[in-house]
Amino acid sequence: MRRSIATVSLSGTLADKLTAIGAAGFDGVEIFENDLIAGELSPADVRHRAADLGLSIELYQPFRDFEAVPPDVLARSLRRAEHKFALMERLGVDRLLVCSSVSPAAVDDDALAAEQLRLLAERAAEHGIRVAYEALAWGRHVNDYLHAWRIVRAADHPNLGVCLDSFHILARDVDPYAIETIPGEKIFFLQLADAPALPMDVLYWSRHYRCFPGQGDLDVAGLVSHVLRTGYDGPLSLEVFNDIFRQAASMRTAQDAMRSLIALEEQVAATTGDPSTSVSLAVPPPAVIPSGFAFAELSAPGIGAAADPLAGVLGALGFVRTGVHARKPVELWEQGEARILLNAGGPDSKEGPALTAIGLESPDPATAVKRAEALLSPVLPRVRDPHDAQLDAVAAPDGTEVFFCWTARPDRTSWIDDFGSDDGGPTQGAAIGEITHIDHVALTQPWHHFDEASLFYRSVLGLSPHESLELPDPYGLLRSRAVSTPDDRVRMALNVANVGAADGRPDVAWQHVALASSDIVATARRLHEAGTALLAIPDNYYDDLEARYDLGARRHALLRELRLLYDSDEHGEFLHFYTVTTGRVFFEVVQRLGGYRGYGAANAPVRLAVQHARLHHRSD
Amino acid sequence: MRRSIATVSLSGTLADKLTAIGAAGFDGVEIFENDLIAGELSPADVRHRAADLGLSIELYQPFRDFEAVPPDVLARSLRRAEHKFALMERLGVDRLLVCSSVSPAAVDDDALAAEQLRLLAERAAEHGIRVAYEALAWGRHVNDYLHAWRIVRAADHPNLGVCLDSFHILARDVDPYAIETIPGEKIFFLQLADAPALPMDVLYWSRHYRCFPGQGDLDVAGLVSHVLRTGYDGPLSLEVFNDIFRQAASMRTAQDAMRSLIALEEQVAATTGDPSTSVSLAVPPPAVIPSGFAFAELSAPGIGAAADPLAGVLGALGFVRTGVHARKPVELWEQGEARILLNAGGPDSKEGPALTAIGLESPDPATAVKRAEALLSPVLPRVRDPHDAQLDAVAAPDGTEVFFCWTARPDRTSWIDDFGSDDGGPTQGAAIGEITHIDHVALTQPWHHFDEASLFYRSVLGLSPHESLELPDPYGLLRSRAVSTPDDRVRMALNVANVGAADGRPDVAWQHVALASSDIVATARRLHEAGTALLAIPDNYYDDLEARYDLGARRHALLRELRLLYDSDEHGEFLHFYTVTTGRVFFEVVQRLGGYRGYGAANAPVRLAVQHARLHHRSD
Repeated sequence: MRRSIATVSLSGTLADKLTAIGAAGFDGVEIFENDLIAGELSPADVRHRAADLGLSIELYQPFRDFEAVPPDVLARSLRRAEHKFALMERLGVDRLLVCSSVSPAAVDDDALAAEQLRLLAERAAEHGIRVAYEALAWGRHVNDYLHAWRIVRAADHPNLGVCLDSFHILARDVDPYAIETIPGEKIFFLQLADAPALPMDVLYWSRHYRCFPGQGDLDVAGLVSHVLRTGYDGPLSLEVFNDIFRQAASMRTAQDAMRSLIALEEQVAATTGDPSTSVSLAVPPPAVIPSGFAFAELSAPGIGAAADPLAGVLGALGFVRTGVHARKPVELWEQGEARILLNAGGPDSKEGPALTAIGLESPDPATAVKRAEALLSPVLPRVRDPHDAQLDAVAAPDGTEVFFCWTARPDRTSWIDDFGSDDGGPTQGAAIGEITHIDHVALTQPWHHFDEASLFYRSVLGLSPHESLELPDPYGLLRSRAVSTPDDRVRMALNVANVGAADGRPDVAWQHVALASSDIVATARRLHEAGTALLAIPDNYYDDLEARYDLGARRHALLRELRLLYDSDEHGEFLHFYTVTTGRVFFEVVQRLGGYRGYGAANAPVRLAVQHARLHHRSD
Repeated sequence: MRRSIATVSLSGTLADKLTAIGAAGFDGVEIFENDLIAGELSPADVRHRAADLGLSIELYQPFRDFEAVPPDVLARSLRRAEHKFALMERLGVDRLLVCSSVSPAAVDDDALAAEQLRLLAERAAEHGIRVAYEALAWGRHVNDYLHAWRIVRAADHPNLGVCLDSFHILARDVDPYAIETIPGEKIFFLQLADAPALPMDVLYWSRHYRCFPGQGDLDVAGLVSHVLRTGYDGPLSLEVFNDIFRQAASMRTAQDAMRSLIALEEQVAATTGDPSTSVSLAVPPPAVIPSGFAFAELSAPGIGAAADPLAGVLGALGFVRTGVHARKPVELWEQGEARILLNAGGPDSKEGPALTAIGLESPDPATAVKRAEALLSPVLPRVRDPHDAQLDAVAAPDGTEVFFCWTARPDRTSWIDDFGSDDGGPTQGAAIGEITHIDHVALTQPWHHFDEASLFYRSVLGLSPHESLELPDPYGLLRSRAVSTPDDRVRMALNVANVGAADGRPDVAWQHVALASSDIVATARRLHEAGTALLAIPDNYYDDLEARYDLGARRHALLRELRLLYDSDEHGEFLHFYTVTTGRVFFEVVQRLGGYRGYGAANAPVRLAVQHARLHHRSD
């Protein structure tokens, strides 16, 4: 199918937008009138620019407040339409979007609406233009696609059809099933947008919070499947109004938009399941669901040295340095199935050590990386020694490297074989702790890449998103969303930092690795005895915990003594604690009891407050 | 009246918040439970810290989901309450806020709610604690203050009363008049918040968009008047949940909060109009409504020199340099009643020339500055020569200096007397242009000071706010709000810049001075002939204008030839154009025909697009 996007979805001048849309590989574009009016490119310039970029101009939009009005208003609107038809001829576009009227001048009279739209279609036909009539979710009298279709059917003109928009339909919770009653050739255009579930007026929601399909909570793929069953073979065209995309770099947003369409087409192909469909849909290599974490890699010059606090924490936890990379300054530390790489050759950031890479156990790394590539994720060029094991990796939107690998498969060489036996550092020996594996990793996303990240983990890695949360931080509300594999063996928490910081306040994008312990009490005692610096949870927290939960005096005393945090859900209980931060990084140790599913979000505000207070104290 | 604020209204640690609240001169504070729990200060520490700062702890909050539940849930909640009572004793606070339940466990049974709240009050009484029951606007069964009051009355316990909250009442459009039916001694607490009119779910609105009274659209003063008529003599306590205040510097927010309360008390005193009221309300010196602009001052090293583009524009417009300050490098340029100061002694900003000061014609400068001081605006220390005329000035929230002065009153010396006759520069002579006065000035506000600025112009200067607009800019949505005197002789447009810029994009906080012309066609011709660089409005704008308006071929041709912009409202028409930007500053020339009231907002997106394109082009 042809892929298109409305210029309003991106930031910048119209010329910037066209360039970005062309570069991202779109076939077509909707010209949003305001972008044209405010720009220096003449309609003919735009036509040529688009052609040079290989873009067809699919639609000119919007033409507002036309139908069901008194004669004098109609006359003015027809005059306005003639001007726009002339403009469209210069632009070389033959489809005009007419939105259902929001004007107080419009009357609730379908026959009049049909008559006037027919008149408009007749005038349009003289210019070879087709009119696509769309029910805005907040239209004054027409706000439902079936209502718009009834009017179009009554008007009965070959140059008049409907425009369907997933947002306008799904935002009002209108059932999209009846789309299949519309003949495909009368669906003149299909606009697509998703949106997160937010409790607000639909117009306000639409103006500020639309996003690309797969980034929100609407079933856009389901709607597209209904549309395709009608025989519709026009473009799939994205139209998003979003406060953040308006500010973000257009090249990147356009690529994110394209990724969204490819993932959507795959979903539609899977839903429609009809190979006889006349349209071709993208079918990227199938998602390869990772089966666990292979490793987490922390980088900084000097990391792993004797005085390095992160290596110190690992040692105190009972991790053992089991290997050193044959050709790079990278150490492997292991305990159970938890593996941490300390990379002293990484970039030297002024923020200090960072979580720079994640290894995912992949049943099929080659396919995983091909899928990532098909979904436009940058595949990382590996300057590799021919001796090294094959390691496929892509860059996540925040720059984190994601490796697809296997650790222990009898039929393959393991990435771990690159790590030779250590030459006898102080921490060598058998692991002694209770850590069994990596429970999850938490990554802070730049605020303008959160939706992109959410789509990346969903589409490229096949992780499912969980509920979006707002966590109060002493300096703002943090947005947090977990993604996981169906079996929860790979779990990640994506947090978005505050938008803009107040004068002079450091804004740290914390990251952490959560390690699962089979006996968190023993692990905590081990660290307390080793003198490892843990985050000092205040007494007030324990007083409140005693008010909220009756866990018995001994258990409360134990939690307080060891500074463990506690949470519960309908499935079970969660015990956890944090180490202090080094650079951007800290460790969490967690124990899930009885199938607890969350991430201790109820305790995150306490953690954030203590972390900020430490930072503040240090900078005083 | 005692003035109080909830800790949740500010950013930072609890210790930071208390310090800021004390410094702003509050009498009391509400301790928000999460701030205590996440902090290192023990309840006793908080008690002492507050006492040291002269703050009484007025309320502990919130206690949630208590009433109308089955016996087992009640037992757990009473256990929880006992813990909180003990904590409150350590804190030294004797009032607990209980919010109406949102729990699915709660049943719709007022008698049961009353019985259980009575039980809670009995327990509280044993600790000398009083319970203030509040109807949350989104309470499951109780969401109206009169409903809460019926339950409290039925419970009939001296330690149980209601808490009223202006947001919860006004956000649901509940009439606050019936507050007067509640005996004052049963109103245990009064929480105050305002909010801008936004079309969304009340809980979402409350969590993100509350603001201080006078910054939003709710009639908080009217509500307070009803409360005071009951004999209520407890504190006026601010409780705001706001995404921006959460991030902004707490000292500044606390001062803004105090300004809001003072302005509110003044309004209430004016509304109540009853000198016999037992409570004392702040009565700052009355607002002195300015009667016009005395001047606008542009500053930069080298400004006013022969090659200075801003002086060049003034000259081309027909302004004449009529004076030079006797002791400072400041020039006075005049035309009609429009006066521009060019200050070459101002700060050297890398952004270039800026609009640094505004002079307002004030009937009573001394009172104006006293009022500003009473409303906590920084009065500017003037390092003045004893020869200079008295010039009173305060700093607006964005740093702009606001002077209160008179230009031509027979009974006083004028600020203009400080400007001696020029020594014969090239522009001397009689003014020749059509500029009559300053129509308005537009100032871009830092995003985290917009509400503060809005309150400043409203309360300190007595300007009335107009509708808040969203203007699409190529790189985000701009928020814009005009404020004006009742007679429109002083008009200002406050714009808020984008929140956060995408990677590497310059984010310019443009400012401008709009000059009124009695014949904008002549003025535009004058500038075109002088070769002055005007903002190049694209042809596409004129094509669209012809589609939207039928102004006649000659008028359309004239607009296009002179690159004038056009708008109309129900009162009249608006013609305007812009000069190109120098540093942060540009000029607009406007002509209002037939009483047009707006600012040409419909054309602002075109202006912004062209300005950004120029900037972009320059930085390529």
